[in-house]
Amino acid sequence: MNRPRSKTGLSPGSLIFVGHRKTDQPAIDIMAYNPGELKEFRTDKPEDTFALKDEAVIAWIDIKGVHSEELVAALGNHFQIHSLVLEDILNTRQRPKIEYYDDYIFLVLKVLNWNDKSKTIENEQISLIIGPNYVLSFQEREADIFDPLRARIRKGKGRIRTMGSDYLAYAMMDVAIDNYFLVLEAIGDHMEMLEEKLLIHPDRNILKEIYVLKRENLLLRKAVWPLREVVSQLDRSESPLIKKKTRPFLRDLYDHTLHAIDTVETYRDMTSGLQELYLSTLGNKTNDVMKVLTIIATIFIPLTFVVGIYGMNFDNMPELHWQWGYFAVLGFMGLISLGMLWFFRRKKWL
Amino acid sequence: MNRPRSKTGLSPGSLIFVGHRKTDQPAIDIMAYNPGELKEFRTDKPEDTFALKDEAVIAWIDIKGVHSEELVAALGNHFQIHSLVLEDILNTRQRPKIEYYDDYIFLVLKVLNWNDKSKTIENEQISLIIGPNYVLSFQEREADIFDPLRARIRKGKGRIRTMGSDYLAYAMMDVAIDNYFLVLEAIGDHMEMLEEKLLIHPDRNILKEIYVLKRENLLLRKAVWPLREVVSQLDRSESPLIKKKTRPFLRDLYDHTLHAIDTVETYRDMTSGLQELYLSTLGNKTNDVMKVLTIIATIFIPLTFVVGIYGMNFDNMPELHWQWGYFAVLGFMGLISLGMLWFFRRKKWL
Amino acid sequence: MNRPRSKTGLSPGSLIFVGHRKTDQPAIDIMAYNPGELKEFRTDKPEDTFALKDEAVIAWIDIKGVHSEELVAALGNHFQIHSLVLEDILNTRQRPKIEYYDDYIFLVLKVLNWNDKSKTIENEQISLIIGPNYVLSFQEREADIFDPLRARIRKGKGRIRTMGSDYLAYAMMDVAIDNYFLVLEAIGDHMEMLEEKLLIHPDRNILKEIYVLKRENLLLRKAVWPLREVVSQLDRSESPLIKKKTRPFLRDLYDHTLHAIDTVETYRDMTSGLQELYLSTLGNKTNDVMKVLTIIATIFIPLTFVVGIYGMNFDNMPELHWQWGYFAVLGFMGLISLGMLWFFRRKKWL
Amino acid sequence: MNRPRSKTGLSPGSLIFVGHRKTDQPAIDIMAYNPGELKEFRTDKPEDTFALKDEAVIAWIDIKGVHSEELVAALGNHFQIHSLVLEDILNTRQRPKIEYYDDYIFLVLKVLNWNDKSKTIENEQISLIIGPNYVLSFQEREADIFDPLRARIRKGKGRIRTMGSDYLAYAMMDVAIDNYFLVLEAIGDHMEMLEEKLLIHPDRNILKEIYVLKRENLLLRKAVWPLREVVSQLDRSESPLIKKKTRPFLRDLYDHTLHAIDTVETYRDMTSGLQELYLSTLGNKTNDVMKVLTIIATIFIPLTFVVGIYGMNFDNMPELHWQWGYFAVLGFMGLISLGMLWFFRRKKWL
Amino acid sequence: MNRPRSKTGLSPGSLIFVGHRKTDQPAIDIMAYNPGELKEFRTDKPEDTFALKDEAVIAWIDIKGVHSEELVAALGNHFQIHSLVLEDILNTRQRPKIEYYDDYIFLVLKVLNWNDKSKTIENEQISLIIGPNYVLSFQEREADIFDPLRARIRKGKGRIRTMGSDYLAYAMMDVAIDNYFLVLEAIGDHMEMLEEKLLIHPDRNILKEIYVLKRENLLLRKAVWPLREVVSQLDRSESPLIKKKTRPFLRDLYDHTLHAIDTVETYRDMTSGLQELYLSTLGNKTNDVMKVLTIIATIFIPLTFVVGIYGMNFDNMPELHWQWGYFAVLGFMGLISLGMLWFFRRKKWL
Repeated sequence: MNRPRSKTGLSPGSLIFVGHRKTDQPAIDIMAYNPGELKEFRTDKPEDTFALKDEAVIAWIDIKGVHSEELVAALGNHFQIHSLVLEDILNTRQRPKIEYYDDYIFLVLKVLNWNDKSKTIENEQISLIIGPNYVLSFQEREADIFDPLRARIRKGKGRIRTMGSDYLAYAMMDVAIDNYFLVLEAIGDHMEMLEEKLLIHPDRNILKEIYVLKRENLLLRKAVWPLREVVSQLDRSESPLIKKKTRPFLRDLYDHTLHAIDTVETYRDMTSGLQELYLSTLGNKTNDVMKVLTIIATIFIPLTFVVGIYGMNFDNMPELHWQWGYFAVLGFMGLISLGMLWFFRRKKWL
Repeated sequence: MNRPRSKTGLSPGSLIFVGHRKTDQPAIDIMAYNPGELKEFRTDKPEDTFALKDEAVIAWIDIKGVHSEELVAALGNHFQIHSLVLEDILNTRQRPKIEYYDDYIFLVLKVLNWNDKSKTIENEQISLIIGPNYVLSFQEREADIFDPLRARIRKGKGRIRTMGSDYLAYAMMDVAIDNYFLVLEAIGDHMEMLEEKLLIHPDRNILKEIYVLKRENLLLRKAVWPLREVVSQLDRSESPLIKKKTRPFLRDLYDHTLHAIDTVETYRDMTSGLQELYLSTLGNKTNDVMKVLTIIATIFIPLTFVVGIYGMNFDNMPELHWQWGYFAVLGFMGLISLGMLWFFRRKKWL
Repeated sequence: MNRPRSKTGLSPGSLIFVGHRKTDQPAIDIMAYNPGELKEFRTDKPEDTFALKDEAVIAWIDIKGVHSEELVAALGNHFQIHSLVLEDILNTRQRPKIEYYDDYIFLVLKVLNWNDKSKTIENEQISLIIGPNYVLSFQEREADIFDPLRARIRKGKGRIRTMGSDYLAYAMMDVAIDNYFLVLEAIGDHMEMLEEKLLIHPDRNILKEIYVLKRENLLLRKAVWPLREVVSQLDRSESPLIKKKTRPFLRDLYDHTLHAIDTVETYRDMTSGLQELYLSTLGNKTNDVMKVLTIIATIFIPLTFVVGIYGMNFDNMPELHWQWGYFAVLGFMGLISLGMLWFFRRKKWL
Repeated sequence: MNRPRSKTGLSPGSLIFVGHRKTDQPAIDIMAYNPGELKEFRTDKPEDTFALKDEAVIAWIDIKGVHSEELVAALGNHFQIHSLVLEDILNTRQRPKIEYYDDYIFLVLKVLNWNDKSKTIENEQISLIIGPNYVLSFQEREADIFDPLRARIRKGKGRIRTMGSDYLAYAMMDVAIDNYFLVLEAIGDHMEMLEEKLLIHPDRNILKEIYVLKRENLLLRKAVWPLREVVSQLDRSESPLIKKKTRPFLRDLYDHTLHAIDTVETYRDMTSGLQELYLSTLGNKTNDVMKVLTIIATIFIPLTFVVGIYGMNFDNMPELHWQWGYFAVLGFMGLISLGMLWFFRRKKWL
Repeated sequence: MNRPRSKTGLSPGSLIFVGHRKTDQPAIDIMAYNPGELKEFRTDKPEDTFALKDEAVIAWIDIKGVHSEELVAALGNHFQIHSLVLEDILNTRQRPKIEYYDDYIFLVLKVLNWNDKSKTIENEQISLIIGPNYVLSFQEREADIFDPLRARIRKGKGRIRTMGSDYLAYAMMDVAIDNYFLVLEAIGDHMEMLEEKLLIHPDRNILKEIYVLKRENLLLRKAVWPLREVVSQLDRSESPLIKKKTRPFLRDLYDHTLHAIDTVETYRDMTSGLQELYLSTLGNKTNDVMKVLTIIATIFIPLTFVVGIYGMNFDNMPELHWQWGYFAVLGFMGLISLGMLWFFRRKKWL
């Protein structure tokens, strides 16, 4: 459950980490490139990044492990980030959003991962600061989802080395959203598997699985819906930080977001469908059980009454002394049974 | 299920086919016409189409089989199509959309077909590039839904030979949307058949059929709803590629799309109605079964008790020795039965 | 069910009738009037109407029976109607809509009738072409809903003879919408009757009736909702064909439409309420049945066990030989029964 | 049920009363005031009010009993009211609305009253015509909800005597909306009482009461929702009839309306909650009944079988001749019963 | 339940307290500060605050206990507050709202507290008047939620001493909204606890708890949703009372509000999920009970019939005299039982 912050009473802009610490030691990975050259190094001192702001390169400053308040404060101070933004970066329970400032754009995203063992979604927050020639990215831990992007920068082919910080930020968002589709695919598979199970061997644990699926869908919706607004605002923004050349890519990204939302909504409807199917199946089973009980009971209860009659001990019961009385009664009961069976067949219960 | 792409980590604009290959060998069908003349040929070399761009004809370049990355790249290169558009053409898991570029308009549609055997909808993607004097259409396979359109061009009557590429694109979209109505009609028939079955011989397999119907409706909605936006944007666009003469036709198309949406939504409500009817019918049946059981049990259980009494072996049971004891008991039980029956009739259970 | 057209593959603007033919021979009723004079005649030749366009009268040209493609084509040709409009007139499966052209306004309406025998709604399509001094109305058959309007024109009192073609069209729409209220009233009565039945003698056929009611409501919604848009657009239109004097009447019409929509939506909620009530009543009945069964069974099953005991044939069963054993057992069973009854009363089952 | 009008075929603007006549003889109550003086009288002749229009007073002309077509026509004629407005005044089945005319504003409101005996809402329509120095109010009967307002005018303190006709109309609407809160409070009490009953002594009649409550809520919604639009339009209107000084009061009124809507919507959700609670309680009860039946049956059915065995009359049944056979069987059956009880306790059914 | 006011018939602007009196003696806490100095005192005389309006300080005048009409009137008189605003301050049943006046902004908020004993939410109303250099806050009782804010003012570090009355009001709203998250967290914990209980030891009281939870959620929604509008309007307002420097903080506040709404909506969906899970669990239990009953009954009813047969007293029943008849019957019944068990196992009921 995405719990809200508990910082009540603190001054707004206080830099306090809110969330679970997911890595031990924060690290900073730097890639600084222009079409001609590429500098790449790792450090844990924020000061090492300060010079980059004024060099003729695009600098990607990737902070891994966001729990260090001093680190964030130092970077924020040098890059002149508003204290409310720094507070948001330190709070890993944000909803996706975008905020425009004079010198930079602030973005919050959620990166999702499907944990195949527990069949649940894990989510991590990524904050981006898009400046004129730099992008600061704050991740909760050492994740590798951006490795292919780094490889593309290193190879230096493609578009990325020739474009600005806005394209770099776009490329990161693109990776994050592409990742959503992996999660959606995993959920889709899981759902199909549930459906098959439900149609072939319905079983009571499915109910809990459907309930968990519903909660996962809620989580997905909370990550994806606000993202639509974020990407749309970025695309329509008039900030000079977003260049005209990057817009077609942002529109493409918007498209992917819509596609993800579409899929999430479809999954939601399908989950409801699964639940209704489960409940109906349950109703069918109760009905089956009832039918068997009714057939057995309605055939044998009258017969038991009949045999009860001839078990009475009255002195004067003429039938008991008839030669074929016993066999006549057996035959009579046979006829009753056949009549009942015919009745059930007519009612389509057999 | 409409699965999302799985190209995570690739550079945006990478040309990689995503989907199921539905034909072996891609082919290109060309129709180039103006009011006076018509040229028609088939090729598999993209170069054969390059000259058409500069001739005084309307050229319809229809690519069948979209899985060849080289073919799409060659065409894209010559017609100067943005690489993101080419990427989308190669990805058959798009949602319907429209994008404006300086020299052309890019459109994605879904064509639906009702498979009467499996009672499911099959869908195929068609991408259109509308240029000043050409239309590139990318289909997943050799389909024949455009055959009547080709016939109209060949006959050369009607409006089509005298209008531009925008009208050609409109005509293709019109065929595609008309096709939706065939699917809707088939689903409508299927639904009516289910309804009749439900009202006359309710049967448990209907539940699964209703569930499948719901999924088909979800699929339809995903194809039809975004289309509304596409056609509406095309109608309201200020692109010079869309001529004033074509607008009434686009408005008509918009109308058809609304009609299709209306029908899809009505079907959706009707499917829910069917499901509720099914569940209520099931409830009624359980109730029926219960009633029969209750009537049989409440009549015979007391009677069995009575005969049990006179089956006891006490030494001192005066009734057993009465002359007419047996017949008195039989009569008494007859009266109880009649009383019960009267009670049930009063309760309207019989 | 309002089925879509099946004209796939035809050129847009092809004049082909789609629907059920509801009359044999098409006829044209003409009323041409100005404040001073009134000309009224019936013909079956479209040519007879051609002169009216240029006379100083308001001409109401009422075509009854819309299945004749030649008739529609001839009129369309003379009054210079766009071929897409003519196509729509011939297609009786349109949704209500309005379209503006330079010289005329095109309107599609649905007229509803409540068939009291089958308890269903019948619907018919009416298309209007509002020109500067004429109104063409296309009806599916010889209906009499406009008779009071004709009477008002003949009497020549009131406003109608002094106003233009826009007021005539308004008056026709007013009659059509007033008709909706008759249908709504009939449905309301039907619903009230169902409700009473449900509260007093609940019965299983009500379920099907509720289901039919829901479908009727869907049909109503499909006719009424788009109408709101039509009337609202007419009211806000800047077409010179709509005079300022007519606007208050259109606003009034809009009001009536909103009232109709309100009522339809209320009916919808009430139908859902009825269904829930039905299901709950059913649940109550099942519960009742269960209770009777349980009471009978829980009283007699233990008693039957007791009498079974004394029906055993063991050699050594001392109770059997007691003088008052039989009566003691009877008394004991009486006590058990009373205890059970007390238990049920405490549980509020009796 | 709020039935629609049945005036089909009449000319628009025909003055015909639609509704139930709620008073015998219409009467007109006049209050004409300015800061200095107050004139108050009752008449049944419309002519008595004609002079007021030109005097330097604010005139409140309150017509009680709206069924007299002549009275409404006479007033309408003198105050130059559009015939469509007069038609609406005579039709007591309007939805709340506002219409602007050059010289006056026309308003329709619903006044609600909670009938504590039948636990239903009664509604009455009030139409207001706000002119430059007069307000015409049309009520269906002699109601006293405006008595406190009259008292305030008579006392001559407060604001009312110094403000214009717009403030008078506002004051009347304020009274009407305050009245809604009385109704809402009564419904709230009723709902709380139902809830308590449901949680403590659930009983089957609650179902019908919940159903009635739902219908009352529908009625309330139909009265309150359109009112929001009316008050909002009045507040934002640019009519010179609404003075700047009155605006804060209208905004306050708008606020009250929102509050009423909020409460209605909350009541709606709570009613649904009550119904779900009822159904769940019912489910619980069925379950209880089932459990008792099952426990009794599963304990005694096997025992009855056992005693049946030893009631058989085979010649060779060794157990029957054992000395302690009878007591052994009794003990055996005691053990079975204890085993069953232990099983039920483990299953948490006891 | 948030009951509406019952002041029907009073003149608008009448100062009458509506609500529950939550404190005995009203008190006024004053903090007057500028960057250099801080004056802090408590009084119960409104006159003591009058001078502050004209001093060069930011004055926070915090009225605790809002039930004193004279106190509110005296303050209102001096600070020239509109009488409708004073009426709203005295009415503790407002919905959150904002109103702009020439010299001040009027705000109503709800402060929520989670009562951990009764597991319910308590709510209190706070009204703010934001003037050029003062903030009047009206609380229902002596609450301590603003203590950390007072501490921050006293310490004089941070931003607050250097900013204006708008920032003070913002800081108060920030505290109030942060408080919502505490409530949300408590509800989240409660919900998780319920869920665990439901999955492990489902029990019938959970139903009432879910019902209470739903009502709490309704209450939360009524407090949080209108707040969004309030904060958004404050952020977008063009009032000179809101300085540019404060805007980023208001935007941050808006963000928190959205986050709270998101969480409330998620909780709502989760509560529905819980209820469905409960109902399904109940269905499962009924099914279990039915199965046990059916298995017992279907095994023993036929057997009881068989033993009944051989309990009959016919003279001529050859089986009774067979040497091994008794044992043959026992064996036969054993076979029937095994057959039944095999049948149940095949049906997956065991």
